Amino acid sequence: MRAEILSCGTELLLGHITDTNATYLAQSLSALGIDLYFVSQVGDNQGRIVDTLRRAWERSDLIIMTGGLGPTEDDLARESISALLGETMQVDPTLGAELRAMFAGRGAQMPERNIKQATLIPSARALPNPRGTAPGWWVEKDGRIIVAMPGVPKEMFRMWEQEAIPRLKPYTGGLIFTRILRVSGMGESTVEERLGTLIHSNNPTLATYAKTDAIDVRITAKAETAEEAERQVAEMEVRVRQILGHHVFGTDKDTLQGVVGNLLQARHQSLAVMESLTGGLLSSTITDVPNSSLHFIGGVAAYSVKLKEQMGVPHETIEQYGTISEQTARAMAHAVREQLGADFGIGVTGVAGPDKQEEQPVGTVYIAVEGPTGVVTGMGPGWRGGREDNKRFAVLAALNLLRLFLEGVKKPV
Amino acid sequence: MRAEILSCGTELLLGHITDTNATYLAQSLSALGIDLYFVSQVGDNQGRIVDTLRRAWERSDLIIMTGGLGPTEDDLARESISALLGETMQVDPTLGAELRAMFAGRGAQMPERNIKQATLIPSARALPNPRGTAPGWWVEKDGRIIVAMPGVPKEMFRMWEQEAIPRLKPYTGGLIFTRILRVSGMGESTVEERLGTLIHSNNPTLATYAKTDAIDVRITAKAETAEEAERQVAEMEVRVRQILGHHVFGTDKDTLQGVVGNLLQARHQSLAVMESLTGGLLSSTITDVPNSSLHFIGGVAAYSVKLKEQMGVPHETIEQYGTISEQTARAMAHAVREQLGADFGIGVTGVAGPDKQEEQPVGTVYIAVEGPTGVVTGMGPGWRGGREDNKRFAVLAALNLLRLFLEGVKKPV
Repeated sequence: MRAEILSCGTELLLGHITDTNATYLAQSLSALGIDLYFVSQVGDNQGRIVDTLRRAWERSDLIIMTGGLGPTEDDLARESISALLGETMQVDPTLGAELRAMFAGRGAQMPERNIKQATLIPSARALPNPRGTAPGWWVEKDGRIIVAMPGVPKEMFRMWEQEAIPRLKPYTGGLIFTRILRVSGMGESTVEERLGTLIHSNNPTLATYAKTDAIDVRITAKAETAEEAERQVAEMEVRVRQILGHHVFGTDKDTLQGVVGNLLQARHQSLAVMESLTGGLLSSTITDVPNSSLHFIGGVAAYSVKLKEQMGVPHETIEQYGTISEQTARAMAHAVREQLGADFGIGVTGVAGPDKQEEQPVGTVYIAVEGPTGVVTGMGPGWRGGREDNKRFAVLAALNLLRLFLEGVKKPV
Repeated sequence: MRAEILSCGTELLLGHITDTNATYLAQSLSALGIDLYFVSQVGDNQGRIVDTLRRAWERSDLIIMTGGLGPTEDDLARESISALLGETMQVDPTLGAELRAMFAGRGAQMPERNIKQATLIPSARALPNPRGTAPGWWVEKDGRIIVAMPGVPKEMFRMWEQEAIPRLKPYTGGLIFTRILRVSGMGESTVEERLGTLIHSNNPTLATYAKTDAIDVRITAKAETAEEAERQVAEMEVRVRQILGHHVFGTDKDTLQGVVGNLLQARHQSLAVMESLTGGLLSSTITDVPNSSLHFIGGVAAYSVKLKEQMGVPHETIEQYGTISEQTARAMAHAVREQLGADFGIGVTGVAGPDKQEEQPVGTVYIAVEGPTGVVTGMGPGWRGGREDNKRFAVLAALNLLRLFLEGVKKPV
């Protein structure tokens, strides 16, 4: 099956927004085993949309449109499909009643122009959109399929996953199930290298993606039933976990800060941090988790020697070893744990850049985690990027070290 | 002049990367007054690239290609253009020598396959690429232009701005100059409303963009010379500044944290912060600026009442007014300024969500800045987004309040 994506919206052609919908759909099609050969962005112009649709109709089996389903005159997806197929749009009574009911439920009268969101053509079926007012269209004709979905990402994601993919089952040879394993403490190329020939597996398939907070390994299986696909994914997951071991910290939407927060809350333990080069980003990342106040007491961005000492880091330690040292990281972890009365204390110091400091190169990071059973330490990834990347990598390294300590992988010596 | 963008790369069709190059070029074309009607992404397949190129050749005057200029067999931009025009690629001796010299300068022997990066066709001129090994191609034939540039953004940005735009001068009716005014404390729609009819100006043109840290107003003028364009922009800038007043905090790459840092450093004054709902993000944002240690003493992410009190916030204030109150924000600003010995102290408290707190809704933010001359206070934007957006907006509101205090716009009462 050959697919093609057509994204409609003048805002795309003015550079006001980036077509991340196409990226999302491309990933999903790849997982479904559907070949994607062309992606196009076209403005809100019926002539150009129909022109592009016609070409897609000639060369592809599946055309996925996003955008152009709103209520205004600029929203031309339905009109363009109708023009392409020579069919006439008519208000569907059921859709019309649903639309009016949706507005009434919000205590509003439906603007009359919205009624076009309740139209269909003979070849089209409506795809429900509980997250918005515009249903999608599922069009089948002459052995070809057009799926028209809203451009608003959260509406589109749901419609694609819940409505479109199940309808594609006869063409994809089955249903798919996907699980992402989230990996920390390893670069993407190392992950691929370790996975070896598995990365070329056919079903389930494996793909790696470098995200800003982890490397994702996506496992996707296709089978006659969703349950069978899930079973195949689970089997592959066991193999991947055997290879990557403790580097896998979670699945799907898990984050390091979420995993660490859950581990601490389950044990009724608390955390406090003192950070230098990361300047508050470690605290901020920890508190991105809802209800983090249940395990996080607080953090000190000790950007000056004075504040470090004020918070309990011994003057002698800094004088003897410098602020950029494992000893100072240990002293920071110890001091913040004591001063704030936490079960775990983290200390992070290093050089964010752009200039070296105390003769140590940009990207140097020392991390210490002190807990009830002792101290574990780690170095940063030694990766020299821009200042913000260095901060981000140091935060990930610190959270991962705490996780490994909490999971018993890293033991105090 | 009608333009069309063609982005080449199988990684785009697998969803491994998003085509942000197209967004960048779309913005630039809009500023140049060149109409952009189509954007396409195609994989590394010569047949499909030539097919898409041919259609673009039929309907557009300017075709901008990115990607496909690397040294491997998958890099097919040059081959596709040659096939489209029926011309033969030949190694250009000068380009060949330059390429070998570039490798020699890095102490490496040039792999033989790289030689195709030194080829041209009769209709093509090379566009220099000091940031990489692949020169671009500037192709003119039959009244049409193809600009082929590398897909690596930093290489492409420079080539487009330094090499392509000047060559487009005869077609765009002049050279352009652009300045961005950065706006804080106002939403995009308010900015547009205030600018009124100016937003529809023809030359210079105005466009607004909502960025994560500010609203950008981009002023672009086109004139016979760059100097004349710059003069026109300066004139328009005066008018826009008259309308938006102190909401304009900087130009081009300026950030709130950078502006605030410069103001403090110029006066040899220092800053310390105590933050609650933002959980460290305020500190982290302040320290995104290189050399921020010159003005930033440190921050306390006081996520617990205990830590707030430990750092000097009176127990009575919290008991009487609650942690989510202007009084507590004031006490936080005062305490951190005193305890850390800073010239300015910021206190931020509020409700990040997802749940309300102390009966106050998600998005509530209280900010206080205490300086040598007194205290100014502000509320957050009251905008209820997700947790991370609420944190981000509160940080921007706090930095903007400090800026207005430092600039003398906000005066202690």
